[in-house]
Amino acid sequence: MKKINTAPISGTQELLPETQAIFDKLKDKIAKKYKAHGFLNIETPMLERTEILLAKAGGDTEKQIYKVAKTAETMEDATEALRFDHTVPLARYIVEHESDLVFPLKVAQMGENFRGERAQRGRFREFYQCDVDVVSREKLPLFYDADVISTLLDTFEAFELKTPVVARISNRKILKGLLAGLNLEEKASDIYSIIDHSEKVPAEKTEAALDEIGLSADEKAKILEFIELAGECEKVVDGVKALEVENEVLSQGLSELTEVAELLKASSCDNFVADMRIVRGLDYYTGTVFEFVLPEYKEIGSVCGGGRYENLAEYFTDQKFPGVGGSIGLNRLFYVLSDKKLIKMADEKPLDIAVVPISEKENSYALEVANEKRKEGLSVTIVAGDRKLGDKMKYASKIAKAAIVIGDAEVASGKYRIKEFI
Amino acid sequence: MKKINTAPISGTQELLPETQAIFDKLKDKIAKKYKAHGFLNIETPMLERTEILLAKAGGDTEKQIYKVAKTAETMEDATEALRFDHTVPLARYIVEHESDLVFPLKVAQMGENFRGERAQRGRFREFYQCDVDVVSREKLPLFYDADVISTLLDTFEAFELKTPVVARISNRKILKGLLAGLNLEEKASDIYSIIDHSEKVPAEKTEAALDEIGLSADEKAKILEFIELAGECEKVVDGVKALEVENEVLSQGLSELTEVAELLKASSCDNFVADMRIVRGLDYYTGTVFEFVLPEYKEIGSVCGGGRYENLAEYFTDQKFPGVGGSIGLNRLFYVLSDKKLIKMADEKPLDIAVVPISEKENSYALEVANEKRKEGLSVTIVAGDRKLGDKMKYASKIAKAAIVIGDAEVASGKYRIKEFI
Repeated sequence: MKKINTAPISGTQELLPETQAIFDKLKDKIAKKYKAHGFLNIETPMLERTEILLAKAGGDTEKQIYKVAKTAETMEDATEALRFDHTVPLARYIVEHESDLVFPLKVAQMGENFRGERAQRGRFREFYQCDVDVVSREKLPLFYDADVISTLLDTFEAFELKTPVVARISNRKILKGLLAGLNLEEKASDIYSIIDHSEKVPAEKTEAALDEIGLSADEKAKILEFIELAGECEKVVDGVKALEVENEVLSQGLSELTEVAELLKASSCDNFVADMRIVRGLDYYTGTVFEFVLPEYKEIGSVCGGGRYENLAEYFTDQKFPGVGGSIGLNRLFYVLSDKKLIKMADEKPLDIAVVPISEKENSYALEVANEKRKEGLSVTIVAGDRKLGDKMKYASKIAKAAIVIGDAEVASGKYRIKEFI
Repeated sequence: MKKINTAPISGTQELLPETQAIFDKLKDKIAKKYKAHGFLNIETPMLERTEILLAKAGGDTEKQIYKVAKTAETMEDATEALRFDHTVPLARYIVEHESDLVFPLKVAQMGENFRGERAQRGRFREFYQCDVDVVSREKLPLFYDADVISTLLDTFEAFELKTPVVARISNRKILKGLLAGLNLEEKASDIYSIIDHSEKVPAEKTEAALDEIGLSADEKAKILEFIELAGECEKVVDGVKALEVENEVLSQGLSELTEVAELLKASSCDNFVADMRIVRGLDYYTGTVFEFVLPEYKEIGSVCGGGRYENLAEYFTDQKFPGVGGSIGLNRLFYVLSDKKLIKMADEKPLDIAVVPISEKENSYALEVANEKRKEGLSVTIVAGDRKLGDKMKYASKIAKAAIVIGDAEVASGKYRIKEFI
């Protein structure tokens, strides 16, 4: 009988070994692709000084940070907390180690982050995040925006999902320039937020929200037309130009978007679209922004996102470090992919071979055989103990693809057969 | 200029990319060996209910647990904390998922644990622990004690250290039986602790400590003789027998130790000794106990340890789950191996190839070439931007083993050369 609640706490992931194996495979595929594309792995500590995490944070993030303190201490002593993303620690890392790093620095970061969100299905408070970032000093070529997106697209390809993945790409300068051209800069922050939510609410609500902040009929029409622009890059660029708003920032945004699209084509990526509805939050991004979606499963929303930021470490240093990055939230992704059955789930046995000595007399030879098979690169366990052979084989069939039974005859002859479980 | 302290907090590990790569290789070798030996990977959350972590803990561990609370909460609200080892979460996991698991369950656990220790060189507060455990219901064959030890020995072999590794093995029943036979059971806990420390202090101190707790000259002589017994299993067993203390538990301990030694030999392990000084703490272990050391670097102490426990989950359930396990503390191990230069450090470049387009005109072809090389399984980055070729090559030589320069001629001919950096 249980004496205590042994369920894992809500908002964390805990899997059975066979499901964990599938999760681990995804993780492995991500790590391999990030490396193949030249991103170097780094790991920053999960524990950070609270002042580092709070240097920029505000609003929800700040309230959701987990502070830590030893049991003997009070919360007022807590000067340390758990990181809530990889970006803030990366900024700290780059400032700290700048003189030992080679720029542009292409880094991959994979590991747990923590955020005290309200627990919900598919929402995690401890979550495994897989980031790539390219950071440089002063200037970073636009080439790397495409580099990040193509790396992530290639990574999703490796997942072999049963449904297509599409990258929706925009550039923050386009909307910024558009609003400047329309003299709507003062309402920019409201408009960003309305656009950001526009996909989750009926069209009338978006219209009403734009009315509410006092847009003229003409301004509203332009915004509504703008956010519907999606598809091939050239067509979208033409669509924006057809709005007849002149602005230099807007033009630069369009030209950057075009260049990124061309670089992606040159990388043999075709599963991307330009999409003017992509905004991604408010403060952080300054150029390219993107989100990956599964178009056949719109309800899932974004499964990967990122963009260009002009000044990564502004809260930690006066030096300028522009960067571009993207992130896969692996727990949520795994949750939705399992939920919708979009990846192969556990039909495979976790191990290659179970060696089954009939009695303890055969243990020695069983150990020899197991070592032989391990040298061939197989995963091998030995089913020891004085249970009946039938019980041992039942156990073996649950954990391994094949069994090797070792009895008197096998020991005497030094020969054995591999029995595959079907 | 820095505006804030950007150093990682003390007691955490933070490495430059090239050193991280070496750490990652060790991690990868461990994961592969654990899998090869049939251990299934699981991951429990780092966040646990405080009551789970405190169910058994006492003394130092309890004071060192990190509680967590959202910034908005006070410490009194903190019902969650960070795990301090893999064993307590494993016990919870097994009780929670018992009906879905196959026993004996061979599991590997790799990940960060947290302990609020005083910061010291080579001591970590956030530390990466790599565990293997075999857990069963009611009974677990002694076979698995050897299984765990041989898996860990094979793992250390994969590290290709420049110094030998030796497993020192004992069985808690031997000392327990010896003390019972000598009627010293009441002083057992003191004696355990004196033996446990005996290697770190001069022999006179150990003698004095045994005097202090009131041992007779004869009793003291037997204990001192006992803890010096180390070497080949047979010889050590003979040595224990020569002490002429009759006790059933002692006999069982000797026979278990002998069986484990025989199984290890059958697994082609030869780098182990029986060693009566190995005790490992007080409460937890009940049979086999072991520690790995580097005999040429005695000052390092144990680099891996573990043993048999008869009742893993007693604080969570009335069911009996015996187990045997072992653990490698990877941060400390990496720290000492780097410090003593016992592993190959960063002489290798992190990437295989840097593709260097001379100007932006060659970006497209550079992307093609990079993709080709990635399909061959290589890690490839592209050095983009409008810097001088010399600067680009200097950068390439720092991060990659070889470069492919792409200029007009390469684009025209579709041919390129790979230049290896020496």
